[in-house]
Amino acid sequence: MPVTRPVLSPPFNVVRVSHVDFTVTDLEASRAFYVDCLGLIVTDEAADKVYLRAIEERNHHSLILRRAEAPGVRAAGFKVASEDDLDRAAFWFDSQGLRAEFVERDHQGRTLRAIDPVGMPIEFYFRMESVPSMLQKYSAYRGARIQRIDHVNCFTPDVQASHDFYRDIGFRVTEYTETEDPDPKLWAIWMHRKGNVHDLAFTNGRGPRLHHIGMWTATPMDILHICDVLATSGYLKSMERGPGRHGISNAFFLYLRDPDGHRLELFTSDYLTADPDHEPIRWTLRDPQRQTLWGHPAPKSWFEEGSFFDGTEVLEPVLEAQPIVAR
Amino acid sequence: MPVTRPVLSPPFNVVRVSHVDFTVTDLEASRAFYVDCLGLIVTDEAADKVYLRAIEERNHHSLILRRAEAPGVRAAGFKVASEDDLDRAAFWFDSQGLRAEFVERDHQGRTLRAIDPVGMPIEFYFRMESVPSMLQKYSAYRGARIQRIDHVNCFTPDVQASHDFYRDIGFRVTEYTETEDPDPKLWAIWMHRKGNVHDLAFTNGRGPRLHHIGMWTATPMDILHICDVLATSGYLKSMERGPGRHGISNAFFLYLRDPDGHRLELFTSDYLTADPDHEPIRWTLRDPQRQTLWGHPAPKSWFEEGSFFDGTEVLEPVLEAQPIVAR
Amino acid sequence: MPVTRPVLSPPFNVVRVSHVDFTVTDLEASRAFYVDCLGLIVTDEAADKVYLRAIEERNHHSLILRRAEAPGVRAAGFKVASEDDLDRAAFWFDSQGLRAEFVERDHQGRTLRAIDPVGMPIEFYFRMESVPSMLQKYSAYRGARIQRIDHVNCFTPDVQASHDFYRDIGFRVTEYTETEDPDPKLWAIWMHRKGNVHDLAFTNGRGPRLHHIGMWTATPMDILHICDVLATSGYLKSMERGPGRHGISNAFFLYLRDPDGHRLELFTSDYLTADPDHEPIRWTLRDPQRQTLWGHPAPKSWFEEGSFFDGTEVLEPVLEAQPIVAR
Amino acid sequence: MPVTRPVLSPPFNVVRVSHVDFTVTDLEASRAFYVDCLGLIVTDEAADKVYLRAIEERNHHSLILRRAEAPGVRAAGFKVASEDDLDRAAFWFDSQGLRAEFVERDHQGRTLRAIDPVGMPIEFYFRMESVPSMLQKYSAYRGARIQRIDHVNCFTPDVQASHDFYRDIGFRVTEYTETEDPDPKLWAIWMHRKGNVHDLAFTNGRGPRLHHIGMWTATPMDILHICDVLATSGYLKSMERGPGRHGISNAFFLYLRDPDGHRLELFTSDYLTADPDHEPIRWTLRDPQRQTLWGHPAPKSWFEEGSFFDGTEVLEPVLEAQPIVAR
Repeated sequence: MPVTRPVLSPPFNVVRVSHVDFTVTDLEASRAFYVDCLGLIVTDEAADKVYLRAIEERNHHSLILRRAEAPGVRAAGFKVASEDDLDRAAFWFDSQGLRAEFVERDHQGRTLRAIDPVGMPIEFYFRMESVPSMLQKYSAYRGARIQRIDHVNCFTPDVQASHDFYRDIGFRVTEYTETEDPDPKLWAIWMHRKGNVHDLAFTNGRGPRLHHIGMWTATPMDILHICDVLATSGYLKSMERGPGRHGISNAFFLYLRDPDGHRLELFTSDYLTADPDHEPIRWTLRDPQRQTLWGHPAPKSWFEEGSFFDGTEVLEPVLEAQPIVAR
Repeated sequence: MPVTRPVLSPPFNVVRVSHVDFTVTDLEASRAFYVDCLGLIVTDEAADKVYLRAIEERNHHSLILRRAEAPGVRAAGFKVASEDDLDRAAFWFDSQGLRAEFVERDHQGRTLRAIDPVGMPIEFYFRMESVPSMLQKYSAYRGARIQRIDHVNCFTPDVQASHDFYRDIGFRVTEYTETEDPDPKLWAIWMHRKGNVHDLAFTNGRGPRLHHIGMWTATPMDILHICDVLATSGYLKSMERGPGRHGISNAFFLYLRDPDGHRLELFTSDYLTADPDHEPIRWTLRDPQRQTLWGHPAPKSWFEEGSFFDGTEVLEPVLEAQPIVAR
Repeated sequence: MPVTRPVLSPPFNVVRVSHVDFTVTDLEASRAFYVDCLGLIVTDEAADKVYLRAIEERNHHSLILRRAEAPGVRAAGFKVASEDDLDRAAFWFDSQGLRAEFVERDHQGRTLRAIDPVGMPIEFYFRMESVPSMLQKYSAYRGARIQRIDHVNCFTPDVQASHDFYRDIGFRVTEYTETEDPDPKLWAIWMHRKGNVHDLAFTNGRGPRLHHIGMWTATPMDILHICDVLATSGYLKSMERGPGRHGISNAFFLYLRDPDGHRLELFTSDYLTADPDHEPIRWTLRDPQRQTLWGHPAPKSWFEEGSFFDGTEVLEPVLEAQPIVAR
Repeated sequence: MPVTRPVLSPPFNVVRVSHVDFTVTDLEASRAFYVDCLGLIVTDEAADKVYLRAIEERNHHSLILRRAEAPGVRAAGFKVASEDDLDRAAFWFDSQGLRAEFVERDHQGRTLRAIDPVGMPIEFYFRMESVPSMLQKYSAYRGARIQRIDHVNCFTPDVQASHDFYRDIGFRVTEYTETEDPDPKLWAIWMHRKGNVHDLAFTNGRGPRLHHIGMWTATPMDILHICDVLATSGYLKSMERGPGRHGISNAFFLYLRDPDGHRLELFTSDYLTADPDHEPIRWTLRDPQRQTLWGHPAPKSWFEEGSFFDGTEVLEPVLEAQPIVAR
């Protein structure tokens, strides 16, 4: 039984996933994609970087684009519940023999950068500059009307190890996929802190790599509209998968690739998971409806490609089983 | 039985209502309302006028705004099926002893301006400059994403006279309201040429005056969104009535007043009426659900106020019965 | 220039496509699909047949299911504007040397059954029993909330011949696909009578065969919901293609196969084509967005399979070019 | 400054509001309203009571209807994070001199019934029987497609006292309304545990009384559809207010009255409030858009009427200021 009960008193209190920091090779092209087409809001920008947020967000940024020689991901960022939680986190990483150090990040308070057991860089902070929510500035709604960042999904070479680590710091499982061995192995896992399906998900594969960041929209109509916009304004090839309905999470989804290939999921239709005794849903690797309730296969790229974390070694996965792609 | 069978072979062939020509006192304010807020597309503009069209329209204009000392309506414009139909129309008006003359209108071919029996000015043309449809230019969708002009609704001092006139030129009744006398009188009427609920509607009242022009959107979501935009960008007082559902026509509606008080209906949810033996639906004046299926009363202004046609005398209505406003 | 101007004075007046008459091998299974799952309304039924209509329809039937040994299509049914039009139609078919005869059809008035030049059976009538519209009986809305029949799409062995025939009886072209020869040939064509994109469409292929009947829903949300219902109630394999957006017609679509393989399109997002000088839109066979604006390929079955008309010989197509399937 | 910082370590851990227990005078009429019309799912029923839940819910019940001589509310029910929290809660109520006792509730584990400082009965439990979520049983979606219970809104005679009490047990303020005195007083308050706008809200008025329970739907389309259903199936008078958009909470809402007058809000369009430093939004009593962004006044009944808690004395409010009703 690879999925175990949540930890009731985690060593420090993570509130939610908060932001991702991308390096991009053509900042103008990336800005055109995220701002002019998708409608994210520019909080701040300089010659070599742009800070973006979504409609309801009061945080200074949920997505950072920084110009660089090669595309990459600096880290997935998490908000903790207090300054003290940063110190407790630092203590805990140290006690586990894991690297963690305080770093400087613009527009944020103290930020702890750590490396998880499979090598994935994660950053924790409590304070970030606050900016106005645009939720009731309806005339500023553009493109996909993205409302907030929701989750980060990663390839990991060892789903069980990733699960165990994040379970230990308080993440709770909502859904998971197992192989169909007599001795089933964890293939993929969805874990949350904020009370919906996930803040963080992991799939078996060469990793650690970022599979995608998930952004929430209010209704499927927003997603259908952005499909029409993308398809008729030069972004047809950015549409990698969808729209469709996942069996897992029940999300109505659309997967996009930005100009550097970073993957973005626009989705809606989540559910509440706040109850501590909320039972995880188990799926098997051979169930085609876990991928797409409506039966559409995902393209090969969706299973294989991902973004590299800066300076992070990519390992082969411990499991070799492959998802059943065909309908 | 005041509503009679449609005329099978009308004297000339009207295709549909096509455009309305408003005079406005503050052209910049009107442009801000219709273009910046509602999202209509500017086909052409000059210092003293703006030509607008909606997303799917290939006609040069469905709404003209012209700067003037006082707000008014020059005419409701109708497209006929051919140049010959204009000559047939001219002959027919003459034969009926009604005024009609060919006038010059920019961006249109020959245009016949006529005065109907209650004094309302109407204009007919066959050719108009063609411009590209924006239907699949999705990145140009703005505001309410208005798709096309649908109808014109007017106060008339004599609904029966208006009905008889437009029936004789081929308009067909889809729904109507009668008083509840032992000898019921026509109170309001919806008539079409293009195969949906209406191109033209009339209500008993001081007239002729324009009650509103109706513009079609693809879904109720577009109307809910523009409510949010209007309410949070300085146009709260422009929202006169709705959103709601009419019993008559089944339209999901929102009524707006432009900066000069001209009334605009945004609506969706029509039905097909192409069958020649399509039976009109009869409503009585006392049925509150004919006005609003959901029971909300309309404000007094909605029953009383309208736009004046230029140089047109307004007459008192022949019927005195009042609609029941309260729920 | 294979697409020519519409005929202004057709020999008889067709109002619209009205209904289709299917034979099915398992009436209970078909009824479960169309009524229990999709939500069509049963007007009348007997041991061996079911008459169905959609929400807004006042006609007795827009779809007939009749039990038979083998699946088939008796005819596509069209409403004409008057009883006289039936006689004019009979005279016209006779003058063209085409077979036509008056037949008995339950719940309909006089019905003329004719065979078009490629062998496709079509039936014309003016009178059909009238039943209440359910448009404002909202508690009866079920499944996909299908509102009305919209069109019939067929394979024809000779698109040019089919076009010429239906143009001559007054159908007007809205969109068409041509091959990319120096001397381009008509590959597919969309024609209407009622003022939207089509009543009747033809694609090059072994035929005549029925490709699909198209049913209109009010919003894309109805189509997304029925995807969820189909996928989770045993009808996953009925979902052949979509949801997606066609380039041609701009329809948001979903294609289904009923238990006998008859194909049904649920769609929304049409546009108005009532103007006699409405210019057809030309697409080329190699433009992948004509098929699916969002780039999804259609499955092979969608290009190849169709329903047979009863007692009708199927001919090889005159053109051999194949549509480009891959994205 | 009447709104103060949240308590970081509350005396016991409330997860969320979970259910409400109504007494009704005509159980059949209530069942018809909630089940046949609104589409709630019957988990269990007996001659004198019905247990209901919404689509995604795995809890045995979120609404209980019990037959009685008079309409009333037994309690608002809250889930706590563990069995231990129940003991901590019992200890805490005792330490505050507030009444609390363990009671028997069918289908639930140990349940602590307590009385808050203004006399409102509240119940806490950790364990409830688990039943299948219907989230992916789409063919069971009916009526308003209500997805889950979201909040409870109450009149209190002393908003400041209610705020202080629930703040002390860990509820956090997201939005609040103050009077416009030089020394402003709390007029209304929205407080949450689960990370969205509220689990519990209070408004100044004769109380304690229940103002309404709030139920979440996935999109505004579900709410528009149920308006149409209610208005055309005998429930027109059940529609008390809306649909509309609240300024406070940004909810798209519809308020209903059940056959006994218990008030139900159907709503959607919430936002995330999980961050511990999430700043509450302040509104003033004179701002009409806090009530309805679109400017529609609420009816008098909405401000004055509410459900009585069984055996609970109703007190006059400490503040006399009245909300500005007119637009």
